[in-house]
Amino acid sequence: MSEPVYTYNQLEHFALSIFEKIGCPPKDAKLATEVLLRADLRGIDSHGIARLSGYVRLWNKKRVNSTPNIRIVHESPSTAVVDGDGGLGLVVAPAAMEIAIEKAKVAGTGWVSVKNSNHFGIAGYHAMMALKHDMIGMAMTNASPLVAPTFSVERLLGTNPIAVAIPADQQPPFVADFATTTAANGKLEILQRKNLAAPVGWVQTKTGRPSTDPNETKSGGALIPLGSDREHGSHKGFCLGAWVDIFSAVLSGANYGPWVPPFVAFLDPPSDPVGEGIGHFFGAMRVDAFRPASEFKSHMDNWISRFRKAKTIEEEDHVIIPGDPEREMEELRRKDGIPINPKVVQDLQELATTFSLKF
Amino acid sequence: MSEPVYTYNQLEHFALSIFEKIGCPPKDAKLATEVLLRADLRGIDSHGIARLSGYVRLWNKKRVNSTPNIRIVHESPSTAVVDGDGGLGLVVAPAAMEIAIEKAKVAGTGWVSVKNSNHFGIAGYHAMMALKHDMIGMAMTNASPLVAPTFSVERLLGTNPIAVAIPADQQPPFVADFATTTAANGKLEILQRKNLAAPVGWVQTKTGRPSTDPNETKSGGALIPLGSDREHGSHKGFCLGAWVDIFSAVLSGANYGPWVPPFVAFLDPPSDPVGEGIGHFFGAMRVDAFRPASEFKSHMDNWISRFRKAKTIEEEDHVIIPGDPEREMEELRRKDGIPINPKVVQDLQELATTFSLKF
Repeated sequence: MSEPVYTYNQLEHFALSIFEKIGCPPKDAKLATEVLLRADLRGIDSHGIARLSGYVRLWNKKRVNSTPNIRIVHESPSTAVVDGDGGLGLVVAPAAMEIAIEKAKVAGTGWVSVKNSNHFGIAGYHAMMALKHDMIGMAMTNASPLVAPTFSVERLLGTNPIAVAIPADQQPPFVADFATTTAANGKLEILQRKNLAAPVGWVQTKTGRPSTDPNETKSGGALIPLGSDREHGSHKGFCLGAWVDIFSAVLSGANYGPWVPPFVAFLDPPSDPVGEGIGHFFGAMRVDAFRPASEFKSHMDNWISRFRKAKTIEEEDHVIIPGDPEREMEELRRKDGIPINPKVVQDLQELATTFSLKF
Repeated sequence: MSEPVYTYNQLEHFALSIFEKIGCPPKDAKLATEVLLRADLRGIDSHGIARLSGYVRLWNKKRVNSTPNIRIVHESPSTAVVDGDGGLGLVVAPAAMEIAIEKAKVAGTGWVSVKNSNHFGIAGYHAMMALKHDMIGMAMTNASPLVAPTFSVERLLGTNPIAVAIPADQQPPFVADFATTTAANGKLEILQRKNLAAPVGWVQTKTGRPSTDPNETKSGGALIPLGSDREHGSHKGFCLGAWVDIFSAVLSGANYGPWVPPFVAFLDPPSDPVGEGIGHFFGAMRVDAFRPASEFKSHMDNWISRFRKAKTIEEEDHVIIPGDPEREMEELRRKDGIPINPKVVQDLQELATTFSLKF
């Protein structure tokens, strides 16, 4: 099924209008649009404009505050806790990352834990904000509980992604951005749309049995931590997801584990919250707080070149430097436009109708 | 084959004598012994006294300096780079972690990257140093290249472990400590000794084919990043290992990637080093730089209890909180003694003879 293609400007215009319609001040609407669409540009279609109607439904349920008072509630020279005041994560997260960067300018590093926020788009966007300052950036977030720890049938963690962005000189930056599960939920959504089976090790049934049904999480099944099974280290994937959860939410005072409010508006948040909203964690480290930036970046060039030219198993493959595929996709889509799944187009057209707009 | 059992004091006495024989000042010999044997106590036998003769062989080759001048070569309020002066990692690492803790007392967090060091025992030891200060501790290290990135036949990374230690109140602390490969090298050593096959997904042959031979790395084969294969996320394990390598070595000025000097003394370090020795990275975050420690620790208790009591797939299993198995092992072995593999006993007896000692 061929997918209609939209230019960045078309999507930008539409998303901007929607964010303004739900009451975001123009500056916030612009920022939210930029963060959201960066996912589409970079090929992470599950986290881009496909989620726009989901944000609106949360706003309808008064679970998103479009005019938040984002503020620091506690701080030290290198740390802060930020209260997102129920705002869009797309707006709260860049504000928090800016605070981390400002702290790093003075203290060498800055670390910001955020409570009372919502989903923040792709983690990579926020981590990459550090790059232009010759800083290393990090971003994590917890998310709706869909993941069962090793041995568990219960879903106690989100896909809890980690992003790390590291500047280089002549080479493009190293940008890792990955869910701490075997496969991101977006990968399952692709299989759902194409009616294809998932590999064993991605999901389990609601009784914890192996499954290849990509719809498993819709009937009580769970995603599996990175590693797939105990023998292949799923307990390590669980450690990673737990780490993200604790840094994002226990440090800040957000909801953690099974108490994280679901992204889908048709499910109510738990009635016994242990904190406020969802949580994020950001870090910025000034490279020259360790060694001169030029020295560091020249060694990063050497690191990247060496790994890029590694001898591979199949001649036609090459070792992929984290961030390469997304950057190449972004170049392509800025030029040739962004294909949107027909089901998403239909969803956006309905959204347009609701707000007397056109898509 | 039953294994002879030694008391902690017996092993302590012997290791202490050896470290003194190679010229460590008494304080350093004591610290190196404590760090080394903590691995045996916690059940990570591959990283404990089994490595003692390996450290001595490196000292014989003048690759370990037993009287290092460990010093800060660059710093900011929340960061430092430490030059380990070729010392034992067992001594350099705790010194660097102390610096991170001191920085955190003032700046909220402390981050220390280390160059010119050697293998540092178990990462968990150093991360756990933060706990008694109501801080979160982190420790990472790069290591001899034995791991092939996704698609590569070349071994470009070490097993590059990450440890994160997080304090709780009534509950024991959360202590994750794991290699960023599907299985740690120590797990393969156990299979080698027992003449058993490894699961598919742990190692590959020197041409990159799947293998179940636990000796594969001895003939040019490689360990595989966490995830096992591309379909199950081995590129994420590669990201993790790369992250550890860059924070430990590119930030500090140590050797990185394939340039990391091998732990085994019979292999010479690369003749074209890109830095000095191997590298580590440490972090300490004062909990009350984010929120009151009592609040945080009480929520950690809640987090741990909730995960501990999760409903499991098999009734007899339970969700394992990171750090539980090692702590339970430590309690047992402090009481009942530490079983040592007969091959290791023989190796230690030979070491004893060399230094006119008894084991």
